[in-house]
Amino acid sequence: MISFSSTRFLLGPILAGLALLMLAPCVVAFYYDSPDLEAFLISEAATAGAALLLVISGRRQSVHLRLRDMFLLTSMSWLMICVFGALPFILSHTVSSFTDAIFESVSAVTTTGSTVLTGLDTMPRDILLWRSMMQWLGGLGIIALGAAVLPFLSIGGMRLFNTESSDLSEKALPHTRRILNRLLQVYVFISILCAICYNLAGMTVFDAINHAMTTVSTGGFSTHDSSIAYFDSRLIELVAVVFMLLAAVPFMLYLPVMLGRRSGLFSDSQVQSMVAIYLTVSTVLAIWLILTGQLNMFSAFRESSFNVISIATTTGFASTDYVNWGSFAAMTFFFLTFVGGCSGSTSGGIKIFRFKIAAIMLRETLQRLLHPNAVFSRSMQGRPLTDEIVASVMAFSLVFATIVGIAAMLLTAAGNDVLTSFSAAATTMSNVGPGIGDVIGPTGNFASLTAESKWVLCVTMLLGRLEIFTMLLLLTPAFWRA
Amino acid sequence: MISFSSTRFLLGPILAGLALLMLAPCVVAFYYDSPDLEAFLISEAATAGAALLLVISGRRQSVHLRLRDMFLLTSMSWLMICVFGALPFILSHTVSSFTDAIFESVSAVTTTGSTVLTGLDTMPRDILLWRSMMQWLGGLGIIALGAAVLPFLSIGGMRLFNTESSDLSEKALPHTRRILNRLLQVYVFISILCAICYNLAGMTVFDAINHAMTTVSTGGFSTHDSSIAYFDSRLIELVAVVFMLLAAVPFMLYLPVMLGRRSGLFSDSQVQSMVAIYLTVSTVLAIWLILTGQLNMFSAFRESSFNVISIATTTGFASTDYVNWGSFAAMTFFFLTFVGGCSGSTSGGIKIFRFKIAAIMLRETLQRLLHPNAVFSRSMQGRPLTDEIVASVMAFSLVFATIVGIAAMLLTAAGNDVLTSFSAAATTMSNVGPGIGDVIGPTGNFASLTAESKWVLCVTMLLGRLEIFTMLLLLTPAFWRA
Repeated sequence: MISFSSTRFLLGPILAGLALLMLAPCVVAFYYDSPDLEAFLISEAATAGAALLLVISGRRQSVHLRLRDMFLLTSMSWLMICVFGALPFILSHTVSSFTDAIFESVSAVTTTGSTVLTGLDTMPRDILLWRSMMQWLGGLGIIALGAAVLPFLSIGGMRLFNTESSDLSEKALPHTRRILNRLLQVYVFISILCAICYNLAGMTVFDAINHAMTTVSTGGFSTHDSSIAYFDSRLIELVAVVFMLLAAVPFMLYLPVMLGRRSGLFSDSQVQSMVAIYLTVSTVLAIWLILTGQLNMFSAFRESSFNVISIATTTGFASTDYVNWGSFAAMTFFFLTFVGGCSGSTSGGIKIFRFKIAAIMLRETLQRLLHPNAVFSRSMQGRPLTDEIVASVMAFSLVFATIVGIAAMLLTAAGNDVLTSFSAAATTMSNVGPGIGDVIGPTGNFASLTAESKWVLCVTMLLGRLEIFTMLLLLTPAFWRA
Repeated sequence: MISFSSTRFLLGPILAGLALLMLAPCVVAFYYDSPDLEAFLISEAATAGAALLLVISGRRQSVHLRLRDMFLLTSMSWLMICVFGALPFILSHTVSSFTDAIFESVSAVTTTGSTVLTGLDTMPRDILLWRSMMQWLGGLGIIALGAAVLPFLSIGGMRLFNTESSDLSEKALPHTRRILNRLLQVYVFISILCAICYNLAGMTVFDAINHAMTTVSTGGFSTHDSSIAYFDSRLIELVAVVFMLLAAVPFMLYLPVMLGRRSGLFSDSQVQSMVAIYLTVSTVLAIWLILTGQLNMFSAFRESSFNVISIATTTGFASTDYVNWGSFAAMTFFFLTFVGGCSGSTSGGIKIFRFKIAAIMLRETLQRLLHPNAVFSRSMQGRPLTDEIVASVMAFSLVFATIVGIAAMLLTAAGNDVLTSFSAAATTMSNVGPGIGDVIGPTGNFASLTAESKWVLCVTMLLGRLEIFTMLLLLTPAFWRA
């Protein structure tokens, strides 16, 4: 049986956290005498009230989470934050429809960064801040999930990262709590560092704070319609590149540094592969841009590396409209959409370790053709790569592709062209943000899509963010059977 | 060590078979006093000469094939037939370049059916016949490969079909030869039956023979630029549908019928799934066509079922330009491209049994999330579905998708737009024929692509036809090491 009561009780504090964060835009709205103040105050009251109600209606004494409860709790907490986070958008009339409010909110909390808003440059600061804060919260949530919940659920090969910290038994709880606390500290520290760097590089304090939050969460919302291109600053782009990369690394690797120990950051095989992949793609694309005479050498490497890292880390900032670089570049960015960063980071996508496992498996398959009876031993990150983990990774990739396909079909049925549909499905599923093509490219916008399209994309954003199976399982009858 | 000598010796008879078949267009060219007669006679002499040379230069006494030899023999025989089969196209000046000749030949032998030729309706009959015959030969080759070689090599989960017939040991050879003989008889019988039906349905004898050969091989070449649409006959479309389906079934299932025993045709789970998938997609698409007011009910079901079955069985006949049906239909046909028919048939693509295995695996993955310590047993076709088979199927699908991706990238680099590149890569890899979009859609043509594009597509056609790994393995250094 699923313990709805425990679930409710635990959702309370999560919603209370959201209410706490929402105080910030309230203060900003008050300070700038914004017309949105009322909208934020009502949202604040509603969120805080709902949090209180959940805590009261849930039972405290039996907070004993079983496997099913954790799936439900994870999905419900994300859904709830999306709904309550959308309140300010609706109440302030920033968007014209309920659909748009939910889309913007889901896009924020899942750190996707696709937007239906235009005119960001003249938008009230409270709204801009709220969008950025929701991305930041979404990033924090996914780090916590990756450290404490997903490895335990053994979703998509994440059991590979099942260390003692992911043991959620009564006994291990204090240890898990300690780890999560340290991760929070690291996340806050990197965010502050990023904001300071952006400010030193020339951003205003407000822009620096907002972009720091959306960089560290690999979300990619900006306070300007033209994104990072607005600043036209090499230095700001450099800061963005550094912090996007830092955010795409497993945050667990920062913990030894905090304790004054040597970090395994550069010796981590996943991080090494990530850097190698990003470097290779950036270089190939830069050479292509030079050879086709589109950019000079310096600009080619600058634009190529920024945009490759932005898309691959699933951040989605744009420094230029790469759709104009021709179909080879468009195809490159389409495939980059799927790559993602490391597990345990804020980035989405299929993620580097799954590509590594796929490569190991492919090599083994080729060897087996020549030596059908040989026995192979596999390991990764110093741990044995069991058949179960490999199967789980394969199932994940397969379902990922299948859902992108189904979503693309639904999007064509909703009236979009083939390329937009494909790209929109992929970019939301990977929580990247911009796609390819005229409509949803880096200078495009999701506003013009039909309401049906937006709802499809809300589903893919959530599925992608929660490693698919967390939500997918809730749709199976077996889950609800006693 | 690879036994080049045995390989050469065995390639001889295969090439001799090609020379034998080539006599047919020679006779036709002679009968119609065609200007191509000289071209065919030279090709005939070259092919027969090469066959003789191979047999003489190879050693007879040591015809002992080991695993590596079989990979090499398979790849080499396909490559050789493509090269010698292209001779008549070059020598007769049917095409203007070497590239086009090879492309047309590879497209024929791999039963893909993409063409660079236009003006088929007024083309000499010898050339038309030769194209159809090469497809027919390619279909026969793949049935033999699927029955006697692939299961033995355990490529892409084909070990599932590893019965006693795929044991190529000295002892089992007579049995294998008997099976192959019977398969040949079945193939010839179905081809003749198909030609008779086409003729009765209204085709001329020449058209009937040609279309029978390209239907049974799921190749899809036609003697008319507008393909099956030229005839505009419900009856002919019905004959095509029936024989495309018969060709997409494992040919092994016809053997019991030959011996007067009850066929397992309708109780075979792969066949059942295939029919269910085709029916579902046809129905959904027909309903879409009716709801969007594009066709009336009868036309919707007629056009939808014909084109769905044509693409899914990887035949590629067109009864209409489905690209005009809008982006939902285009996306549907894009995904259908990958489906394919049953293993052991002439059709290409990923094939039904792999989708079945993927579905079984997905269900297991979902169950495992709720019951992490449960033990699952899998079976298919009455045989246990081992981890090795599942892994092999997954690796196949992954590599299939990866190669489509790489090919698509190369095609964009060669100057094609994103949609054409993607679709061309997929349709050639699956050996379907037509793609989506304006350039290579059902009424389009591959002639306008650049030479580089055509070479990329030759590679994907061959890789796709030979279940990828047969050729891929030859590109690894490990294969050539002693």
